[in-house]
Amino acid sequence: MMGYIFGKKKATQVAHSVWSHIVQKGDTVIDATCGNGYDTLAMVKMVADKTHSGHVYVMNVQKVALENASSLLDESLTSDERGLVELFAICHSKMEEVVPKGVPMRLVTFNLGYLPGGDKALMTRSETTLQALEAAKRMLAPGGLISIVVYVGHPGGREEYEAVQAFDSGLPVENWICCKLQMPNRPLAPIFVLVLKR
Amino acid sequence: MMGYIFGKKKATQVAHSVWSHIVQKGDTVIDATCGNGYDTLAMVKMVADKTHSGHVYVMNVQKVALENASSLLDESLTSDERGLVELFAICHSKMEEVVPKGVPMRLVTFNLGYLPGGDKALMTRSETTLQALEAAKRMLAPGGLISIVVYVGHPGGREEYEAVQAFDSGLPVENWICCKLQMPNRPLAPIFVLVLKR
Repeated sequence: MMGYIFGKKKATQVAHSVWSHIVQKGDTVIDATCGNGYDTLAMVKMVADKTHSGHVYVMNVQKVALENASSLLDESLTSDERGLVELFAICHSKMEEVVPKGVPMRLVTFNLGYLPGGDKALMTRSETTLQALEAAKRMLAPGGLISIVVYVGHPGGREEYEAVQAFDSGLPVENWICCKLQMPNRPLAPIFVLVLKR
Repeated sequence: MMGYIFGKKKATQVAHSVWSHIVQKGDTVIDATCGNGYDTLAMVKMVADKTHSGHVYVMNVQKVALENASSLLDESLTSDERGLVELFAICHSKMEEVVPKGVPMRLVTFNLGYLPGGDKALMTRSETTLQALEAAKRMLAPGGLISIVVYVGHPGGREEYEAVQAFDSGLPVENWICCKLQMPNRPLAPIFVLVLKR
């Protein structure tokens, strides 16, 4: 976290560091926007242990993202670790349709915008992102975290950030702690939003 | 920092933790708005060592604040430590008039708003706060930090926050790293702004 403040770490590195304070071995977590799989990989390492009870549910609406993520996981994980991951080619707003009902999630992560190296015309959208955030809110365990990295430098990014703001600013303080980090003199830098369920 | 995100620490505790990553023994630092002296006390402990080369310059426009701070320091510090502190009954915008010229500051701290327990009609103001921030910018050492805790829950607080925003958002990214932390679902909670000189 200090690394972010002091400009030495990227938003994703900081995100992984925050997650590691929340996630425990054996937890069930969701990567709602897997991109090329680097976040997924970090999450598997956080939940995997000898009990094989951890699970990572992974979504992306773009097949190419799932293929890239799947290749990265195949290369980087043991077969036991790889067995903890399930990938779904669906919109993040549909996460409740594929994840087992009644299993509380310790972490749900969002990395909004377009796929790095992919088609920039395909990106997450305010409306489905808001639905996905509401779904994450319903599925989260007490003490669990919703982590959102919002990129605002592309067309539609600012609008999506406003949807995230509408979501987080409306969460009741009795049950939800929210923290937002941004870099005021870099208006196009990613904004990092953390939503913790008490 | 994690303590702030997870709602377990107050803004001032988090501020002290961030400062301790920047300030070294023997450094010269400024508490531009000393209040009742709790920040000053933390800063003295950070710079004091056997060489007695550290200095803490302290300002407040209200005499009662300086008296409270002075009493706290007298009670809490050794005479050697107490000797490192100089208190000035001036507006924070005048800091350059009392601090030795050409001595680079490692840290300049601002805790904006009114004196805790004091007269709520007396508070820092946008115009002089902006002048004080510009002075701090001129006096800061490379690698040094301006730390600003902005209270927005009182009349004039929002306006002062906007002055801080005008200051930090205009800092050139080549030389200045800025980070802002806030709690989106607590619109009246203090906002923490960090400005680091590269």
